[in-house]
Parts: sequence; C-alpha cells; structure tokens
Amino acid sequence: MATIDINCDMGESFGNWQMGNDETVMPYITSANIAGGYHAGDPHVMRETVELAAEHDVGIGVHPGLPDKMGFGRRKIDASPEEVRDYVVYQLGALTAFARRHGATVQHVKPHGAMYSMLSESPDHARAVMEGMLEVDDDLIYLATDMNIYEVAQDVDGLRAVFEGYVDLDYRADRSLIVEQTLEDRDPELVADRFVSIATEGVVEAANGEEISIPADSICIHGDNPNAVAVLEAIHDRVEENDIDLVSLPELV
Amino acid sequence: MATIDINCDMGESFGNWQMGNDETVMPYITSANIAGGYHAGDPHVMRETVELAAEHDVGIGVHPGLPDKMGFGRRKIDASPEEVRDYVVYQLGALTAFARRHGATVQHVKPHGAMYSMLSESPDHARAVMEGMLEVDDDLIYLATDMNIYEVAQDVDGLRAVFEGYVDLDYRADRSLIVEQTLEDRDPELVADRFVSIATEGVVEAANGEEISIPADSICIHGDNPNAVAVLEAIHDRVEENDIDLVSLPELV
Amino acid sequence: MATIDINCDMGESFGNWQMGNDETVMPYITSANIAGGYHAGDPHVMRETVELAAEHDVGIGVHPGLPDKMGFGRRKIDASPEEVRDYVVYQLGALTAFARRHGATVQHVKPHGAMYSMLSESPDHARAVMEGMLEVDDDLIYLATDMNIYEVAQDVDGLRAVFEGYVDLDYRADRSLIVEQTLEDRDPELVADRFVSIATEGVVEAANGEEISIPADSICIHGDNPNAVAVLEAIHDRVEENDIDLVSLPELV
Amino acid sequence: MATIDINCDMGESFGNWQMGNDETVMPYITSANIAGGYHAGDPHVMRETVELAAEHDVGIGVHPGLPDKMGFGRRKIDASPEEVRDYVVYQLGALTAFARRHGATVQHVKPHGAMYSMLSESPDHARAVMEGMLEVDDDLIYLATDMNIYEVAQDVDGLRAVFEGYVDLDYRADRSLIVEQTLEDRDPELVADRFVSIATEGVVEAANGEEISIPADSICIHGDNPNAVAVLEAIHDRVEENDIDLVSLPELV
Repeated sequence: MATIDINCDMGESFGNWQMGNDETVMPYITSANIAGGYHAGDPHVMRETVELAAEHDVGIGVHPGLPDKMGFGRRKIDASPEEVRDYVVYQLGALTAFARRHGATVQHVKPHGAMYSMLSESPDHARAVMEGMLEVDDDLIYLATDMNIYEVAQDVDGLRAVFEGYVDLDYRADRSLIVEQTLEDRDPELVADRFVSIATEGVVEAANGEEISIPADSICIHGDNPNAVAVLEAIHDRVEENDIDLVSLPELV
Repeated sequence: MATIDINCDMGESFGNWQMGNDETVMPYITSANIAGGYHAGDPHVMRETVELAAEHDVGIGVHPGLPDKMGFGRRKIDASPEEVRDYVVYQLGALTAFARRHGATVQHVKPHGAMYSMLSESPDHARAVMEGMLEVDDDLIYLATDMNIYEVAQDVDGLRAVFEGYVDLDYRADRSLIVEQTLEDRDPELVADRFVSIATEGVVEAANGEEISIPADSICIHGDNPNAVAVLEAIHDRVEENDIDLVSLPELV
Repeated sequence: MATIDINCDMGESFGNWQMGNDETVMPYITSANIAGGYHAGDPHVMRETVELAAEHDVGIGVHPGLPDKMGFGRRKIDASPEEVRDYVVYQLGALTAFARRHGATVQHVKPHGAMYSMLSESPDHARAVMEGMLEVDDDLIYLATDMNIYEVAQDVDGLRAVFEGYVDLDYRADRSLIVEQTLEDRDPELVADRFVSIATEGVVEAANGEEISIPADSICIHGDNPNAVAVLEAIHDRVEENDIDLVSLPELV
Repeated sequence: MATIDINCDMGESFGNWQMGNDETVMPYITSANIAGGYHAGDPHVMRETVELAAEHDVGIGVHPGLPDKMGFGRRKIDASPEEVRDYVVYQLGALTAFARRHGATVQHVKPHGAMYSMLSESPDHARAVMEGMLEVDDDLIYLATDMNIYEVAQDVDGLRAVFEGYVDLDYRADRSLIVEQTLEDRDPELVADRFVSIATEGVVEAANGEEISIPADSICIHGDNPNAVAVLEAIHDRVEENDIDLVSLPELV
C-alpha cells in the first residue's frame, strides 16, 4: 500500500495582514510548514497556527525564512552559512515553544523561498543548517525540495530527510518547476492524477510530455491557490479510490 | 552558610552595535539573563552569549523584551496579556534552541524594561506570562524584580520564583529603586557591603538611612557600568571572607 | 454651494500582503492619506499609491503611524512628544520625496490609529507634531479627527486645520464614534444621507436619534469596507443631486 | 589653489546603541553622509545629526542603506533596480524633512556598504538610483566611491557627480581598496601626506609602491577609527601649510 504525506506552507499572515486559507486547508493535510516570524508570521499567528494544526492532528514543521518581511523572504541575502544556520535555530526554537504548549513537538524543517534557494546552491549553507537543526533536536526531519539539497541531507550524519514533489505546478523534463507568477485555479482532476502517479509510481508527466521520476514521500500543496480546497478534495477522493495511505513524515523515514 | 545567586543582563548587543561587557563580566556571575532578540540581541549575539555562559558554567535565562528595538524595550506598549505572553514564549523558545545546541537548558525568565513594568502594574499580564512559560517548561524559574510580581508568581500554581535585590543602585525606604540616568562608576566597597548585607541578613540601608528588608536570593548586577568588573571583584572578595556560597537559581528554589 | 472633501486611508499594503481596495476607491475621493511605512506601507507601496493618487488628481497626505507593524499602529507606545514628532517628520519626508517624483506635493498630515489617540489625549504630543510638520513645510494642513486635536491645532501659530466627520460609522451623542470590530457592508443610502447632512448642514443623527453638530469640511470613508465602492457611488450620486462641490483640502482652508 | 571636500559617514547610532564619534569629528569635515534609518540611524539620531551638521555648517548628504539592520547594510540583497531606487528615495526624503527643519537642504547622496557594491556591479541599479534621486531634486550631487559608478553617473543626463578618494585605507595598484577588518589607529602623518598628495596632484602611492591616479574632489575619512580626531587634526594642519581650500561639494561641481 502506497503511503505519502501532504505538506502545505501555513501561518504566513502577519499582524493585521491575512494570507492563505489556513483554516479551510488544514483539515486536508498531514504536515504544516509554519512560518517562523522572519519572512512571515508573528508570535500570535504562530500560536494560532500551532493550535489549528494540533486540533487537526497535523504534524508541525518550521518554515524558516530570511529576515526580510518587505521581500517576503524571496530575495537572496549575502549571509554566511553560520548566519543562516542561526536564523533557522532561532525560528525553530520559537516554534518549538508554541508546540510544547500543546504537548506537541516540531517534527520537520523546510526552509522558505530564497533561503531554500541559497541552500540548494551552496552545500556549505545546506550543511550548516542541517547540522544546526540536529544539534537542537536530532529527531528532526529535513523536508527536501530538490535533489541538490536532498543529496546534501543524505550525507549529513544522523539526519533523516524526505523528498517532496509538486502536483499543482508543472515540472520541466529536468525536474525543475515552472513557477507561476500569479495565484490561479488549478485543475483538480489533473492535480489529483499527478498526486496518485507520484504516490504510487514515483513518476509524473513533465510539461513536454516526457515521464520523469519524482521519488517523493511528501507532496507540497499551495494552500493559497484560490481553489486549494477543491484541489485537496479531489486528491482525497482519489487517495481513497487508490488505497493510498496519508501518513505524517515520521512514519515515512 | 548563606547562599545567593548573581544575575546580570547579557547579550544586549545587536548586529554591529556593541553593548555591555559580557566577556569580562561572565566569569563573575552565576545567572545570565540573555536578551531574546526583541528589545536587543539577535540570533548571532544569542548564540555567542549562550556559548560564553556555557563556557563559564553560568545558568542561562531569557530576558524577553517588547518588540521595540528603537526604544530598547523601555517604552510600554498597549499590548494585551496574551500578546505579551506570546512575545515571551517566542523569545524563550528561540533561546532554548541555542541552549540545547550546548546541552544546556534555559533555567529562568526575567522580563526586561517596560515589559517588566507592565507585569508589575497588571497582574493579568504577569499571570499570562507566568502561565505561558510554565506551559512551555514547568521547570522554569521566574526571577522577580519587585514584590508586586513576586506575589503574583507565588500565586501561580506550580511556579517557582526567586526574588532579586539590587546593590549598585540605591533603594528608597519603600523598597523602590532610584534608577540612574547615566552609566557611571559605583563604589565597589559600598556595593560589596550591601551585597553581604542582603545575602546574610536580607536587609540593606535605604537612601534615607533607614534599614529595609530585601529578602532576595539573587542579586542583579549592572554589567554595563564602566567599573562593573571592579565591583564584581570586590563582591567576590567579600563573598569569600564571609563564607557566602554563590549558587545558581535552581539550587535556591 | 456646499463644498466638502472626501478623504480615505490608502497605501496600507506591506510587501506581499495586500490590504484595502486602493485602485477601485481612488477615483471617488479627493484626498488620500498614505501610510508612511511605520504601521503599514513600504517604499514600493508608497510609490505606487502616490502614482495612483496623481493619476486621479487626488490630494496627497501622509498617514503617519507608530513604529509597530505587528500591531498595525493600533497600540499606544509610551513615547515622548519629541519621539512622536520625529516619527511624523521622518514619514512625512519620505512620502514627500515620492510625491516630488510626480511633480506633486504632500498637502496634509493625518496621524493613524494609536498615534492619533495619543495626540488626542496629550496636547503636548499634538503640539510637538504640529509644530514639527510646520517646520518642515508651513503650507501643510492638519486633518483633525476629533475636537480635542482640532482645538490644539487652532492654537498652533500658522497652522491650517480641517475637521473631518465620519458617515460609515455611528456617532454617539457626545460626538465619539462607535468603531466596528469587523469590516462589513454599510448601507449606501444611509451613508449618503449622512454625507449630505454633514456637507450641507453640519449635522448628523447620533445612534440615540439625537441630532448632533459635526462641523466637518472633510468626510473620511473607510476604503476597506467590502462595499466601499457602492457606498462611494451612492455618495457621488447624492452629491450631484444636491449641488455639493467636492474639492480638495487646500481649497477649504 | 587646490580645493577639496572631506566627507564622513555619520549618524550610524541606533536607539540606545552608540556608534562613531560624530560630535568630535563633525568640526573637521565639510560633508556628512547621514544614515537614513535602514542600515543604521533612526528618526532621533537623524535629527540630532542634522542639528550637529547644521551647527558646524557641514553639508548634509544622505547615506542610504539596504533594509538590513542586523547585517548593518553590508550584505547584498537580491533586490531589483526599482526596489533599490525606492529605498533611496524613501531615505532621501526622510532626511530632507529633518534638514528643512533647520533651513538646510540635502546636497548629496552616497550609498552605503552593500548597496554601494550593488550599484558598482550593476549599471542598471546605479542608473535607477541616480535617475530616482534627480526626479526628487535635480540639484542633488552623487558622491561616487569608485570609477564604475562614477562613469555611470557621468552618463546620467543632468546629474552632477564627485569622485571620492580614501586616505586612511591602502589602495591596490588597480585602485581598489584594502578594507581593514578591525578599527584601529591610523598614522596621522601618513594619512595627511596622502591627503595632500591627492588634493594637490590627484595621485597616491599604492600598497605596492606604485603611484596611481586618484582624481578625487572629496576625501572620505572613517570617523569611527579610534584616532579619527588626531588624523583629522593632522590633515587640517597640512591643509593649512599647503594652502588647500576645504570646500563643500556644491562648490566643486
């Protein structure tokens, strides 16, 4: 029986500014990547998002970003591996405290935006972050967004990593993603087809029609798409039809 | 044999801006109140300060502040009990992660500046913060700066609190402190006398000559006074002469 | 012929976070209060909002706030009159530079949220801000939200002030406003009735049915109400029927 | 008679954190580059620094930085030309308002740290900033730190630029600077020799002994060197002996 996790970025509101559809999306996912207050989120948003995740028995992960709210953490900053590691440790710790208030733990780390890109391009940065998170808690799982990072993670002694795939974006044949500039409806059936294909066979059709291998144990869904709930319902229907088991990250490593 | 703790605010540098004399002061104290990144400090400063404390076997506490770097956390903000609690939880968690990297734990919480004043004036705020910190870790000790707060702390179920005294500032007869506007040299012998007096007898002479009761188990030293090290050396000499035992907070509760 | 100005808070988005309906509302107003980057707004949002105002020939004002994005400038901070004045000068200057790029000037100042409340409660704070803005540019108009502030403004030598009224909120008989906690549709006809009543007679019906005097030369509309455009259309229809002239602030002082 | 300007970065304190020696250095310089609140400075520091400059009749310029206080504006951020331009416009405007309170104007723009490096490496970024500052005030002078930027500045229609040299750092033969990692005393006589050499002949000896051309009309002095005042006194002595005229930037373009 195929097993897979559904992860989604969460807690990206800030103060009075709302973002995403956390309340309607949370019931459909198994892992929440919660912003740590640097690119998005704040202590109140973090607390509420942790409460929402705990209520729905969703695994809690930290989604640390660069200290750049004005740029939503999407602009690379010329920071050293140690600086980036310290940013991750800070945000990981902060979220852990909110999780402990609910008897929960932080189970995984998934860097956001430009921080992810920096780790993907610089193995030194990736290693510093991964070693730093293990020093804080050696049960933590690294949720890897691309193969560069996944390979570094597999080299870090004692680190458990999970590779994630995407189904509401198109892949190029080289396994890079075609990122959309605007949030728009996705075709629920197409997305659900891809979900099943990755979950059961580890493959997906790229934009050029070629079938490519995506050996993912977790699928990332964009919760801020306007029809994210419809997409997630289609996935859940198909998951049931195909006897796929939705499980949280710790059961996958 | 009298036992007492010496605590000092630490880690109040920020980015390229230096503050205090952490490296020279750390060897003389038993508890460090480390800024949590809101009124002062940042992830790099926090990491370095935790390393310094661990190296000198100094107990680590969090010194959470209001989110107001421009005002150094010294201006009250009209925030709700829940908001202040969430700020404390956030900073406590962040510091805990750095402590864990060194196999250490955060042992105490001592709010900074205007946050302290808010808790002193509003029992609702004080209780929210104290209950919040216990929900994160019920071993945490609250380091209480005045009697208002100490009394609330004693009412919070399961919370251990320590009352702190001051020896490098003058007390008024009503046990309030005369805060100096500028940092200047203190008389090491006078400060050391007061230290011994509080540690052994729980009393000190107020500015008007009256002897007042200060039932403190910890003494706060201002590490940013220009002659802080001379003051601490005088205290250590006197501590030895008087067979006073310097111990960390967990041994006092 | 009655003359009146319509002002609206604008430019309260921040980074990737959207707020308000600036593009659809701007065509209906005569004065825009543009956030200065402290409680909301950022340099890019300010530039775009200035461009939008210039395009619709809407008068540009600065809407300065306290340095508290997490609290959206709605929490009082224990800052001195000089500190608040400097915050206003800073944000006023920043907005002026963007206005100059379009050959426009900043015509008025209207403090936001808790800064407004602080000025209303403390004449020292109000005077410091008003004198500070005049030192920068003695053509600036102060847009006064309540009578406390309006009276201080009338006492400041050389300062021109305009009093504003509200029509999409209810007044109490004492001329204080009943602020709604949630954004919801307003009745366009009721709002338009009040608009005409204030514009032509300077009176409005309070919540208890009493008729109260509102000697306003400007009406503030909340652009983030869900049906703000419908409300503004109703006002414009009624303005035409009643031969009311919509003019910008400098024509009113 | 040779004429030259002395510029110095100023106003880099922030809140309670002090940096530099503005009060002792200001009497010796002709142009102050005042931080705009992004990498350093705040509204109160800006006001005080403007007051100090006005008192000593020192020309006021803005020293805009990237929005990165934690990194002191020394880390490049992957921001677009338009984003960087908007940051400059914002900080320029803010400083202008403080200058206007003293009947002064902002005379020049000199980007700080990583923002300077970004402009030096990307002509698109440099042009966007230069055109943006001209749109705000076409009297503004651009103070150019290297030849890359100076050349772009000379190409921008209507922009007046001044090239600056350094005398308290060593040049390499390719006219790049050897930046010291720590602040330490400079040899006042050596620095004064270089000052005269650049001011009178436009040349200086590089680290390898080679004489190189530095066609500078302004010399930048680092005011945070521990013996900055001694260095400036040596320069002033030598300036007098050599009949060099210290003038402000507008007299040099």
